[in-house]
Amino acid sequence: MKRREFLTTTAIGATALAVSGCHRAEEKSNGTSANINRGKKVTLKLATSWPAHFPIMGTGVDRFAKRCSELSGGTLEIKVFAKNILVPAMQVFDACSAAQIDAFHSGVYYWKGKNPAFSIFGGMPLGLTSEEMITWFKFGGGYDLWRELYGKFNLYPFIGGTTGPQMGGWFKKEIKSLADLKGLKMRIPGLGGEVMKRLGVNPVLLPAGEIYTALERGTIDATEWVGPALDSMMGFAKAAPYYYTGWHEPGSILELTFNKARWEKLSPEHQAIIASASNEMTLDMLCEFRYKNAKALQKLPKNVQIKTFPKEMMDAAKKALKAVLAEESAKSPNFKRVLASYEAFEKLNKPWDDISTKNFLNIRG
Amino acid sequence: MKRREFLTTTAIGATALAVSGCHRAEEKSNGTSANINRGKKVTLKLATSWPAHFPIMGTGVDRFAKRCSELSGGTLEIKVFAKNILVPAMQVFDACSAAQIDAFHSGVYYWKGKNPAFSIFGGMPLGLTSEEMITWFKFGGGYDLWRELYGKFNLYPFIGGTTGPQMGGWFKKEIKSLADLKGLKMRIPGLGGEVMKRLGVNPVLLPAGEIYTALERGTIDATEWVGPALDSMMGFAKAAPYYYTGWHEPGSILELTFNKARWEKLSPEHQAIIASASNEMTLDMLCEFRYKNAKALQKLPKNVQIKTFPKEMMDAAKKALKAVLAEESAKSPNFKRVLASYEAFEKLNKPWDDISTKNFLNIRG
Repeated sequence: MKRREFLTTTAIGATALAVSGCHRAEEKSNGTSANINRGKKVTLKLATSWPAHFPIMGTGVDRFAKRCSELSGGTLEIKVFAKNILVPAMQVFDACSAAQIDAFHSGVYYWKGKNPAFSIFGGMPLGLTSEEMITWFKFGGGYDLWRELYGKFNLYPFIGGTTGPQMGGWFKKEIKSLADLKGLKMRIPGLGGEVMKRLGVNPVLLPAGEIYTALERGTIDATEWVGPALDSMMGFAKAAPYYYTGWHEPGSILELTFNKARWEKLSPEHQAIIASASNEMTLDMLCEFRYKNAKALQKLPKNVQIKTFPKEMMDAAKKALKAVLAEESAKSPNFKRVLASYEAFEKLNKPWDDISTKNFLNIRG
Repeated sequence: MKRREFLTTTAIGATALAVSGCHRAEEKSNGTSANINRGKKVTLKLATSWPAHFPIMGTGVDRFAKRCSELSGGTLEIKVFAKNILVPAMQVFDACSAAQIDAFHSGVYYWKGKNPAFSIFGGMPLGLTSEEMITWFKFGGGYDLWRELYGKFNLYPFIGGTTGPQMGGWFKKEIKSLADLKGLKMRIPGLGGEVMKRLGVNPVLLPAGEIYTALERGTIDATEWVGPALDSMMGFAKAAPYYYTGWHEPGSILELTFNKARWEKLSPEHQAIIASASNEMTLDMLCEFRYKNAKALQKLPKNVQIKTFPKEMMDAAKKALKAVLAEESAKSPNFKRVLASYEAFEKLNKPWDDISTKNFLNIRG
């Protein structure tokens, strides 16, 4: 899923005043330009785009904050605020850029309006898996590009977890051929939605709270979300029992992003603590998604039928994606540049993945 | 590879006296029973089973130690010693159990002589991948069992990195059928070797420094090692150009293990630092193996032919593995108990992996 609509359904409080007030108080106690001494307690305000303690993604941030406190002997406190408490869910990027908050946890693809290239950092339809994405960031140049481009917004990003492969969505009717997609109304945002549009689907956007009813009443014919663990909470199975395997979000990356000026004022020790704990959070979240998706899959209602999209549809999706990427590249030099780095890693990685992970999973049967 | 022979080829110095001397000096400055105060500097001696700064595995430990220093503001120093400097490579388990060293980095499967169940914590032929193994440890009960059984040796283990999928090995002749294996001499240790034996192979053990010559002279017909990144250093391509995809080590786990009494005396902050940094090390090493294997694969000599074992051989390997596991379970209640936990997770994980990662990699093409 791209969770934009989900996030904006609850009240967007006018808390900007309160935020900036709190933040200035922080700044005062922490000094301004010099490195903050390790002995002094530092408190950072982190706003998320999720409801409080949202399973896996939200609880992952909660654990990250607790870990920072443990690692620092209590000198680094990260206060986590659920969406819309300090800042509206979809304004965390701007608020952090403007130093109204110190950090945020969200999804990178939400900010493609700021720079089209940002959608690539969030993940690519038919592209890299979570493990491959992380390898691109760490070893293939992804982090350098991300930090350079976020730097222009006074932001300093880390990977803050990843979902693993997401599912392709819930459909009211079985999709037996590419032709079956024609005219379907599907709630699917982002590049995946762009591709689906070219396959004849009418992609629509709906707030989370309205999806089930729309499906049930037939206002939409299909919706994607995340995977069994989180989808089960939404009740889609009752209205749309054909549950399709994934292709459009094989390794979505969540972000843990800091105000850059604020980041640079942190002590080297606090910086190391955040970096290390963000890696731990990423590994834990990847494993937690795997475990809880596996558990939830066992418990899906009996009427659910797991299906894979027809090969002709996936072939058409690959072609459509190429066209979309070419158009985006023509429009945005940044998109083109990040895509070149991404594709260079893809080209390097594929021959190895084909003979290692992919081949092994097929041998294992 | 199981690296036992590799590790024991260089001189095994009689350094026990020096070690225990150093260690006592440490103990004195750190106090004995009370929690060590965070403000006091703690120095831990960590012995590895690898040559100094050995690529990926050794450098991973070096980075872990540096990270512990950064995270603790210099109060937690982990001194890393290459194999045979403080302790012979294959005696790190015993030395740490006896508190002659504080910690070690090695491979879990080396210690199956201590308890047959330990080989399962190291990984299983035709079993879980690295990401799946880590999920089993964290969410499926693996860590609880490992810590309980290592506790009997006064040890407290962490995952200390993982290799990702390893390759099946280098062969002088192509394997076109199960029958082609009959009578072949192959350097392959562990459960993989046990399975190969039942397929007609004569598994042999050879020190690392002798493998190439044995291959070149025809004393052996085949050898396994790790993957392109580390195998390239060994020159096997010249003597045995058929390079087979993997099945016997799909997700080998390395261990970062501490003397338990020593661990319990560390401050909660230092304990958190080690736990967090070990997770970071695990994620980094998994990605580094992926990246460097992909790079090395591109640069293999032109005469190398990548091959996959015949399906009938893999089918026979699955049957043979079942028999081996049944025999081990009958001999060892610990093996049986750990295997039950491992297999319960495998059963939970497989339906989800089949429709997510495996299915996606096949759709991606």
